Amino acid sequence: MKKTAIILGSDSDLPIAEKCIDVLRKLALPFTVHVISAHRTPEQARDFASSARTNGYGVIIAIAGKAAHLAGVLASHTRLPVIGVPVKSADLGGMDALLSTVQMPSGVPVACVAIDGGANAAWLAARILALNDEELFARLESESAKMTESVNHKNDDISSKYNK
Amino acid sequence: MKKTAIILGSDSDLPIAEKCIDVLRKLALPFTVHVISAHRTPEQARDFASSARTNGYGVIIAIAGKAAHLAGVLASHTRLPVIGVPVKSADLGGMDALLSTVQMPSGVPVACVAIDGGANAAWLAARILALNDEELFARLESESAKMTESVNHKNDDISSKYNK
Amino acid sequence: MKKTAIILGSDSDLPIAEKCIDVLRKLALPFTVHVISAHRTPEQARDFASSARTNGYGVIIAIAGKAAHLAGVLASHTRLPVIGVPVKSADLGGMDALLSTVQMPSGVPVACVAIDGGANAAWLAARILALNDEELFARLESESAKMTESVNHKNDDISSKYNK
Amino acid sequence: MKKTAIILGSDSDLPIAEKCIDVLRKLALPFTVHVISAHRTPEQARDFASSARTNGYGVIIAIAGKAAHLAGVLASHTRLPVIGVPVKSADLGGMDALLSTVQMPSGVPVACVAIDGGANAAWLAARILALNDEELFARLESESAKMTESVNHKNDDISSKYNK
Amino acid sequence: MKKTAIILGSDSDLPIAEKCIDVLRKLALPFTVHVISAHRTPEQARDFASSARTNGYGVIIAIAGKAAHLAGVLASHTRLPVIGVPVKSADLGGMDALLSTVQMPSGVPVACVAIDGGANAAWLAARILALNDEELFARLESESAKMTESVNHKNDDISSKYNK
Amino acid sequence: MKKTAIILGSDSDLPIAEKCIDVLRKLALPFTVHVISAHRTPEQARDFASSARTNGYGVIIAIAGKAAHLAGVLASHTRLPVIGVPVKSADLGGMDALLSTVQMPSGVPVACVAIDGGANAAWLAARILALNDEELFARLESESAKMTESVNHKNDDISSKYNK
Amino acid sequence: MKKTAIILGSDSDLPIAEKCIDVLRKLALPFTVHVISAHRTPEQARDFASSARTNGYGVIIAIAGKAAHLAGVLASHTRLPVIGVPVKSADLGGMDALLSTVQMPSGVPVACVAIDGGANAAWLAARILALNDEELFARLESESAKMTESVNHKNDDISSKYNK
Amino acid sequence: MKKTAIILGSDSDLPIAEKCIDVLRKLALPFTVHVISAHRTPEQARDFASSARTNGYGVIIAIAGKAAHLAGVLASHTRLPVIGVPVKSADLGGMDALLSTVQMPSGVPVACVAIDGGANAAWLAARILALNDEELFARLESESAKMTESVNHKNDDISSKYNK
Repeated sequence: MKKTAIILGSDSDLPIAEKCIDVLRKLALPFTVHVISAHRTPEQARDFASSARTNGYGVIIAIAGKAAHLAGVLASHTRLPVIGVPVKSADLGGMDALLSTVQMPSGVPVACVAIDGGANAAWLAARILALNDEELFARLESESAKMTESVNHKNDDISSKYNK
Repeated sequence: MKKTAIILGSDSDLPIAEKCIDVLRKLALPFTVHVISAHRTPEQARDFASSARTNGYGVIIAIAGKAAHLAGVLASHTRLPVIGVPVKSADLGGMDALLSTVQMPSGVPVACVAIDGGANAAWLAARILALNDEELFARLESESAKMTESVNHKNDDISSKYNK
Repeated sequence: MKKTAIILGSDSDLPIAEKCIDVLRKLALPFTVHVISAHRTPEQARDFASSARTNGYGVIIAIAGKAAHLAGVLASHTRLPVIGVPVKSADLGGMDALLSTVQMPSGVPVACVAIDGGANAAWLAARILALNDEELFARLESESAKMTESVNHKNDDISSKYNK
Repeated sequence: MKKTAIILGSDSDLPIAEKCIDVLRKLALPFTVHVISAHRTPEQARDFASSARTNGYGVIIAIAGKAAHLAGVLASHTRLPVIGVPVKSADLGGMDALLSTVQMPSGVPVACVAIDGGANAAWLAARILALNDEELFARLESESAKMTESVNHKNDDISSKYNK
Repeated sequence: MKKTAIILGSDSDLPIAEKCIDVLRKLALPFTVHVISAHRTPEQARDFASSARTNGYGVIIAIAGKAAHLAGVLASHTRLPVIGVPVKSADLGGMDALLSTVQMPSGVPVACVAIDGGANAAWLAARILALNDEELFARLESESAKMTESVNHKNDDISSKYNK
Repeated sequence: MKKTAIILGSDSDLPIAEKCIDVLRKLALPFTVHVISAHRTPEQARDFASSARTNGYGVIIAIAGKAAHLAGVLASHTRLPVIGVPVKSADLGGMDALLSTVQMPSGVPVACVAIDGGANAAWLAARILALNDEELFARLESESAKMTESVNHKNDDISSKYNK
Repeated sequence: MKKTAIILGSDSDLPIAEKCIDVLRKLALPFTVHVISAHRTPEQARDFASSARTNGYGVIIAIAGKAAHLAGVLASHTRLPVIGVPVKSADLGGMDALLSTVQMPSGVPVACVAIDGGANAAWLAARILALNDEELFARLESESAKMTESVNHKNDDISSKYNK
Repeated sequence: MKKTAIILGSDSDLPIAEKCIDVLRKLALPFTVHVISAHRTPEQARDFASSARTNGYGVIIAIAGKAAHLAGVLASHTRLPVIGVPVKSADLGGMDALLSTVQMPSGVPVACVAIDGGANAAWLAARILALNDEELFARLESESAKMTESVNHKNDDISSKYNK
């Protein structure tokens, strides 16, 4: 099974990464976590990305805030799919990170998910990895069914409280 | 080879789809094109998405503007990776489509690319499909090298014009 | 009397629904409350909406945040009026939910109210239901007069405090 | 049949009103068109709104741009449902009109549709008027089916062109 | 001396009005405070504005949030200068109130000050009232000199702390 | 009669000034026009503002785009009321000029009107100058009545065309 | 060594200045701190800027919020490089200060850094001052290496915690 | 004299670079022009930046649009001052490029100028280079005086036309 790399632009982004890790663990997907800054450790970003496929990675998840160049910088050094998670900032609410992550020029795509969307980055990675993995795809279908069930339970609770 | 589905929310989105198609053709990737509206043909959206894997698709690209629900609606009916392309509108410049596409709740991810980013949707699809396809991965590396070369040529032209 | 359905995209939206419920109770309008996610329980959304008229509903109120597709998805499966309440998020202040709710394409309208505007969703539902209900219309006129009175009382309090 | 009133804040908003009129005509719904400015003719706004129900109106559609107070001002003088259509401006793309129309305080609701959404204002009016009108509801269902068909035809055209 | 009217759209806006009142008291300008809602008490808004000049007012200050129509509605019923103070909201930070207040159509101007700018509304009122009042103008010059002095004192404090 | 000064930050803002001039001429108000840049001719800005009252001016209108500091800079050098007109730019639609003009700190107010609102700057100046000028006030009432009439004529035209 | 001037528009901006001071001290660069308001003490702003070069300054850092004219006003009175730091406000998150600082007209540049970016203002000042100072440049290279090391240490910590 | 490097993210940014070149030529400053994409030619970006000082450059100007990572990427590989010029895009007006350029994390500063502000990038470069160059500083003072004169001429023209 190919690994997923979770790259944090700063260790302050760890709470968002935790949401990502929780999903990957639930799906039993192998992953590693790294702190690599596009601006403070550009060589590490380049080295990691350019050797990621060789090192057994299938997907890279980049979590970064403000002028969030991390996903784009990694995507420029690899042909693996790179998922970008824009992180909310105190001033502009994450709009800066969102636009810096999603508005990539043609030829170097980033798959952007929601602001602070660490969990969805993992769900998206799983969908990608499941393309050629029937067993993982089945697990995704089963998790999806559980989500449906969970919403239905909440519906039962609230319906029974209000609808008499 | 798994197919890529290109779904247009409206036939007026065709110019953005063409940018997508050009890349898929260049990479010799099989694809089909469809017009399915999340709001006017919700049954078709559901039927297409829920049977897409069975029908041989690997990735779905959804192109839509304004309150762009298409990618999210498709993603709710399949576990395949869904790529969303927000389309620029005359009033808010595509900010509406961008937020409607990217801000998905946990569990149902959409891989959002840039506003009007039809080409990058195709490049992202190719990166996803190349995960288990060494030959396609090599084509991506070669296309990437060509892009580098093309920028370098432009650099030569402009450098020689201005730097004497 | 036709019922009003209050649909929450997530049980975390309950505080906004409570503002809606308070108004409906004050007006003695029948209603039911449900948790249905456009993305996690799309079948329930479809089933509820497509049978709502037959089941005695006159208006549907959809409360959802982020990429708020709920109102639009419900409106695509029914010809009843659907009122959308965008919910404030921690990052973009509800701008994402507002645009996802209001910018619907021609043919599938949503009646959007203010961000977190649960109360106004109920007032709007009442105006709609009062179209053919003289008694309810009279109640609305009387509630409106009470609001006027309440503002006038506050004016008296503050005027008497500051204007001597 | 109750009439629909189309109120333009300025005669320059006529192109948006035309989209509204087209739909009302297609549905054979009675309507009248008026130019009333919330700011230049406030007495007319008040007089129209406060007597609208008595004069046989069921729904009021207010079309206005910039600091679009028209829908709110009308809604403060009547208990009929008021639909607001924010008009795109040259500078802020209609964001000003959208926020001025949708962010109404509790107790005085406006049903806001998309920027320049004249057509959807009419579709929404029709859904409201159809609440107690089986025949109109049937017409809405039939129009909805035609829209579905129209998208399907476009899908056939484009599919046959690209998918061989 | 002509009076200044401070109109609050809601009694929750009182903290912003207090900033206004403090300045008017410092300048010994006569004023009255009122709670009048453009939407809940439109008749009071109209009556107040249309008789304001006759009642001895020279300037009207309107303080309101969200779809802040108050200043515009008052300005439509009087030819006195109307100053609008947009109030910050919890969701959009006051952008809604700012645009609703400032983007008025030609012919019915509102003098908009900063979000939550209660103090500046009073300073602006004083500048307007001082046009034909040499004594008040002198007081404004003197207050301005005090402000300069106050900044200079802070500069002394901070300079002496840091610049050695 | 005190004069109104129209200050353009750049001669490219002349079309907006023309809208201002038209209104002042219609009202027979004396005015002068100047090109003074807050950034390129700061000494001229300071000299003009600090001597404006002595030179017979009653109101200053500042028209500027982008980082529109002109109104604020003028207001810092005079105690006359300063009206700011933010000018639309090609990139951000005038949002930059609007925020630069309206968000002034306490003590130095600017009366901001709409983006490109040259006409309303003049109407506002007239309301200010009319405070102690019964004749001008009467002219304003009469112009306001003409505006009402003009809207009513347009209403007649459009009503007669559509309402049969 | 030329000095760096840190100018605060208000003493409430001191926390942002502290971030700036920390970096300048770490680099042993001489600096002074001042409170000068573009609007309340415009003469001081002009005097400081126009004599700054003569007084031994090499770079001016201006820290201001809301309609942040400080950097632009200083830049209009000197030919030294002026760095602007937009300060976050409670309402618009600093977007107002950012646009007021960065959107300067041609000929009078401001070097804008991030919202609340006091530290980067100092780093930028150091890069500028290092242009002709080999020793300072070496210190910058060494600080840069330390930053890289610090990120690498965090990476080691987090990698060792998660990657087993 | 140290050279200025003008780096274009794409040859489509040439019109913005031309505005930059015009100013550098007017000031007789040596410069070179290059096309280097942060994403398509990351190695070239790294090589250029890391050797720029050695190669005789004093300032780097980076011109890029959309997710404009170019300035930040260059700044991560050099300790020279890097000036970023965000380029206007068709959809979001350059807000994406502005935020991607200006919101840099601590330690790796970019000096951001206005959207499409090619000319000001050159003026800023000149101010930086003039720090230790009395002759260039004198040229800047003289150009500044010419700008003042030019505005004064325009003022004369317009004043004489309107003020009689």
